[in-house]
Amino acid sequence: MTVRTIELREPVMARNNEIAGTVRNRLAAAGVPALNLVSSPGSGKTLLLERTLAALSDELRMAVVTGDVQTQNDADRLARHTTRLVQAVVTGGACHLDAKQVDVALEAIDLAATDLLFVENVGNLVCPASWDLGEDAKVVLFSVTEGEDKPLKYPKVFRQAKYAVLTKIDLLPYVPFNVEQALGFAREVNPDLAFFRTSALTGEGLDTWFNFLRQLTRRPAPV
Amino acid sequence: MTVRTIELREPVMARNNEIAGTVRNRLAAAGVPALNLVSSPGSGKTLLLERTLAALSDELRMAVVTGDVQTQNDADRLARHTTRLVQAVVTGGACHLDAKQVDVALEAIDLAATDLLFVENVGNLVCPASWDLGEDAKVVLFSVTEGEDKPLKYPKVFRQAKYAVLTKIDLLPYVPFNVEQALGFAREVNPDLAFFRTSALTGEGLDTWFNFLRQLTRRPAPV
Repeated sequence: MTVRTIELREPVMARNNEIAGTVRNRLAAAGVPALNLVSSPGSGKTLLLERTLAALSDELRMAVVTGDVQTQNDADRLARHTTRLVQAVVTGGACHLDAKQVDVALEAIDLAATDLLFVENVGNLVCPASWDLGEDAKVVLFSVTEGEDKPLKYPKVFRQAKYAVLTKIDLLPYVPFNVEQALGFAREVNPDLAFFRTSALTGEGLDTWFNFLRQLTRRPAPV
Repeated sequence: MTVRTIELREPVMARNNEIAGTVRNRLAAAGVPALNLVSSPGSGKTLLLERTLAALSDELRMAVVTGDVQTQNDADRLARHTTRLVQAVVTGGACHLDAKQVDVALEAIDLAATDLLFVENVGNLVCPASWDLGEDAKVVLFSVTEGEDKPLKYPKVFRQAKYAVLTKIDLLPYVPFNVEQALGFAREVNPDLAFFRTSALTGEGLDTWFNFLRQLTRRPAPV
């Protein structure tokens, strides 16, 4: 059954990868690094982005494309923290964003006046792992309320990601969650994963995340 | 893009619904009510089932089919609380269980000696909504750490479900979460939804859930 579904989807996937290549070239030509944020529903993608926009909007020109199955709630939340346009994509049932949607969303974004692009994917730890959106890196978020074994149970997205953000660390005193075990499981699946530990509520760990974003947008010195 | 994916999947879906019908008839003939538990990864499906098996195994003969993308962790966890077989289905990438997998899993279950069947779906709020597994009812779980708007953002699964379980209510003092607003959003999407509020950690609300299960398995008096 699984195999059959994948076969049927192959032409769609091939077309997606082709468009993702175009998106990647476009972003590279404009010198805009792009992060594709992926997580379960409610792991804190939007809140991390809200904090990021609020903290860094004066120094970095950040664009956001945010996807949801329904509602533009996330786009509305994010728009409060930036004067720039937040592009909302409503997938209307699809369990992930695709490259075409990002490609279309980029039409409304002035890449020449953008330092960094965030793509906030649909809340889902399975489907987005299979869809290249032309990003430089996937960032997988998971919260301390979700249990340590998420990297083992959803290995593909942890393997695809370059960065992992452990969110809601302010709740650690109240939940049975072993941080070292969770990071160990993530490393088992992907030894190259770099970790952040954040609480968007208390602000803990956000400085490290912000510094990472600053580094990411540092253009090479002109020759 | 979305439409194209759905079109390609139509024959697969039609076949699934046919098998789901067979499963439903089989369960009805044996008088076994079946609940299909759906939620985000880490919302607490497995822990609720662990508590349920531990508390009710002396009075109800419960069978469990549990699905995961990878690992049999959930099945192992559940097996500790029951002497009965826990059927693990590893989807190997698929974002939901399908009726065929449940149909095959039922081969190993003695339905004549079963009072209640739980199907624990893959952690995902999108895909499982579209797949009938032959259950009597879908039960959607969401935790107080996920934010109030999940019913609006993932309306299909809340519309498909008969029951909703708000989990991890022990964390309410530590998270910004308005219970009435969340239940209001869920009712907007599905006015017929019945609610449970539980903490599998402290046990709060579990008695109501257990009583509901007892009711569900009460066979009609013989004529």
